[in-house]
Amino acid sequence: MARLVMKFGGTSVADIDRIRNVAHHVKREVDAGHHVAVVVSAMSGKTNELVAWCKAAAPRHDAREYDAVVASGEQVTAGLLAMTLESMGIPARSWLGWQLPIITSDAHASARILDVNADELVKGFKERGEVAVIAGFQGIHKETGRITTLGRGGSDTSAVAIAAAMQAERCDIYTDVDGVYTTDPRVVPKARRMEKIAFEEMLELASLGAKVLQVRSVELGMVHNVRIFVRSSFEAPDSIDPHGTPPGTLICDEAEIMEQQVVTGIAFSKDEAQVSLRRVQDKPGVAAAIFGPLADGNINVDMIVQNVSADGATTDLTFTVPSADYDRARDILTKVKGTVGYDRIDGATDVTKVSVIGIGMRSHAGVAAQAFKALAERGINIRAITTSEIKFSLLIDSAFTELAVRTLHSLYGLDKA
Amino acid sequence: MARLVMKFGGTSVADIDRIRNVAHHVKREVDAGHHVAVVVSAMSGKTNELVAWCKAAAPRHDAREYDAVVASGEQVTAGLLAMTLESMGIPARSWLGWQLPIITSDAHASARILDVNADELVKGFKERGEVAVIAGFQGIHKETGRITTLGRGGSDTSAVAIAAAMQAERCDIYTDVDGVYTTDPRVVPKARRMEKIAFEEMLELASLGAKVLQVRSVELGMVHNVRIFVRSSFEAPDSIDPHGTPPGTLICDEAEIMEQQVVTGIAFSKDEAQVSLRRVQDKPGVAAAIFGPLADGNINVDMIVQNVSADGATTDLTFTVPSADYDRARDILTKVKGTVGYDRIDGATDVTKVSVIGIGMRSHAGVAAQAFKALAERGINIRAITTSEIKFSLLIDSAFTELAVRTLHSLYGLDKA
Repeated sequence: MARLVMKFGGTSVADIDRIRNVAHHVKREVDAGHHVAVVVSAMSGKTNELVAWCKAAAPRHDAREYDAVVASGEQVTAGLLAMTLESMGIPARSWLGWQLPIITSDAHASARILDVNADELVKGFKERGEVAVIAGFQGIHKETGRITTLGRGGSDTSAVAIAAAMQAERCDIYTDVDGVYTTDPRVVPKARRMEKIAFEEMLELASLGAKVLQVRSVELGMVHNVRIFVRSSFEAPDSIDPHGTPPGTLICDEAEIMEQQVVTGIAFSKDEAQVSLRRVQDKPGVAAAIFGPLADGNINVDMIVQNVSADGATTDLTFTVPSADYDRARDILTKVKGTVGYDRIDGATDVTKVSVIGIGMRSHAGVAAQAFKALAERGINIRAITTSEIKFSLLIDSAFTELAVRTLHSLYGLDKA
Repeated sequence: MARLVMKFGGTSVADIDRIRNVAHHVKREVDAGHHVAVVVSAMSGKTNELVAWCKAAAPRHDAREYDAVVASGEQVTAGLLAMTLESMGIPARSWLGWQLPIITSDAHASARILDVNADELVKGFKERGEVAVIAGFQGIHKETGRITTLGRGGSDTSAVAIAAAMQAERCDIYTDVDGVYTTDPRVVPKARRMEKIAFEEMLELASLGAKVLQVRSVELGMVHNVRIFVRSSFEAPDSIDPHGTPPGTLICDEAEIMEQQVVTGIAFSKDEAQVSLRRVQDKPGVAAAIFGPLADGNINVDMIVQNVSADGATTDLTFTVPSADYDRARDILTKVKGTVGYDRIDGATDVTKVSVIGIGMRSHAGVAAQAFKALAERGINIRAITTSEIKFSLLIDSAFTELAVRTLHSLYGLDKA
């Protein structure tokens, strides 16, 4: 019997009707002969309600108590789904993080999974043909015996970790979209759903804003080689052939992707601001003097571009920060002007970072060069460039975002027929 | 350091403001030098919401899943109160039933507490001066490791069991009334709050409708000699002198009550219906033939009066059932007429049971006789009488309820000056 993990997010379990819909998805897979573990989030809105109570009770609250409070949301849906399945004649039982247990670090509110014990799940499959309904997002710290949570979106990570522990054939992530697209379909109507994408590519796409699933779950999938299938929870459960290939995107090892595209997808982020420090002293410790204070101010620095100094004494340094942090970043940099030693700060908030991702880039030269040419032909100025092995990112004026994304999407042959 | 248990019900923790109010009550006792364990219910309305979801998910749901769902309500308030206390500078930590643990039977949804391990609580008191905030109403079954709940009002029982385990000096039950009254003050404006009442008396009062706290908690208090103090949660926390004697009612061993009243209180219940079977065959097994089917129909039979047969062949049998079950009871009895063998069924739904309670009755003769005389003088007919060692109950026409209760309240010297 193949083992399967099915994960449903908050909108998929938002009320009793939606939970019943989930139960029918589960029934389909059970009827098809799978041993199933279901991982559920809290009903949508519930976690926000619980978090709001914590904030009202104590603005700076104890993270251990916060975890005890917010973990209750998943507990409720796990119990409700288990009893719904049972009422449909499907043996089922709910499992909380501490019951399996799912052992985590003690970083309350953003704990990392250290170990999942799937023995009881497997026993339930084999001895009682039992569906395991597992509360996502939560675990337990071994030494203190206290409930931990994994941070927002953590149920994806729970699902992949459980899939790894029980050696599942696949981890199905049911969500409100039917897969991962080559770029945002709202911007490029010709965007295609990808059939498959390699873990590394998905990591780049996820962290760049294609918010389909939590980045950490993809990392975990990559490490343990858990095949993750992103699919829609809004399809009628009975209309799907469990033995067929339903619409969705499989995130898997690159070896499983026969014909690797050079470019897989185009991501973009408009919430960027560019900061340029002109004529920075080119001496050791200067980067630390700039980025240390920004980190202390909790400002996330992304693209960093520094040219080799032309005069041997000073250089220009450009980087991006979230546009919401732009003013604060300038204030901080103004304060450290004396220690850093630069001439002036330039900047812009109406900039967009466009990223082109593809494992095939590793073996293809000149991929980025094509982009530079195509964008130049359309009069799009490139403010800064960074590259890595499987992607490159360009900073452009926001006004050109749609044009640039569509141009690149066509350029690399991603448009649907 | 004296150890104290403080229990707060749903209306006392209904929102963040009320939880903060509870925290101030706790602070007062901590400042007075007590080692405190707080037991909390779910926010009022929350348990109903969770129960409604269970019913909607599966009308006949698995009680184990039901328990996992509903226990989440207390989990939330325990965490919120603990973080509120911490934000006020009071070391605190939440404890769930499975964490202590509180071991119960596996009678899910109405489990009984078998054992409470208070070691960690006492350690917290001694080593860290820590307030323990404990989720009421819940425990864990040892063999299955599953969450159990104690049934409605179970947090009172949690509180008393914890008080017994940690050898608390007292278990304070904070509620929306300021104590136990000699009778319902809405009916008898002259009703007095009792300073003290013996466990046995409170058991009779509680089960007769003075719904101040769960009957099982009083039983448990009696067995383990835990002094239970019923008091109001609506008083301003800071207006109370923790070393003084705040308003409330102490439920304690009768030995602690110096001057025992003959009669302590008058309870009454209007939701009664009377069923009389006329000319029942007076033979062995007849009671079983009547009450067996009623029990199978889940109908709770209360007062039972059977006279010694006059003719040696038949007798009249009278008993009471909840008025909501009256029609159903008659239907059941009609069906078993053949096996029971009776002449006809009489009945009435507009009847009230009035009960007079007092440990002093044991050593005073003629207490009930005074009542019969006083009621007769006011033209109140007594339909049936039952007696026990420390109480007697009278069934009368509902129209006379207020008159009867006031008459008896005065008769036994319970009116306030």
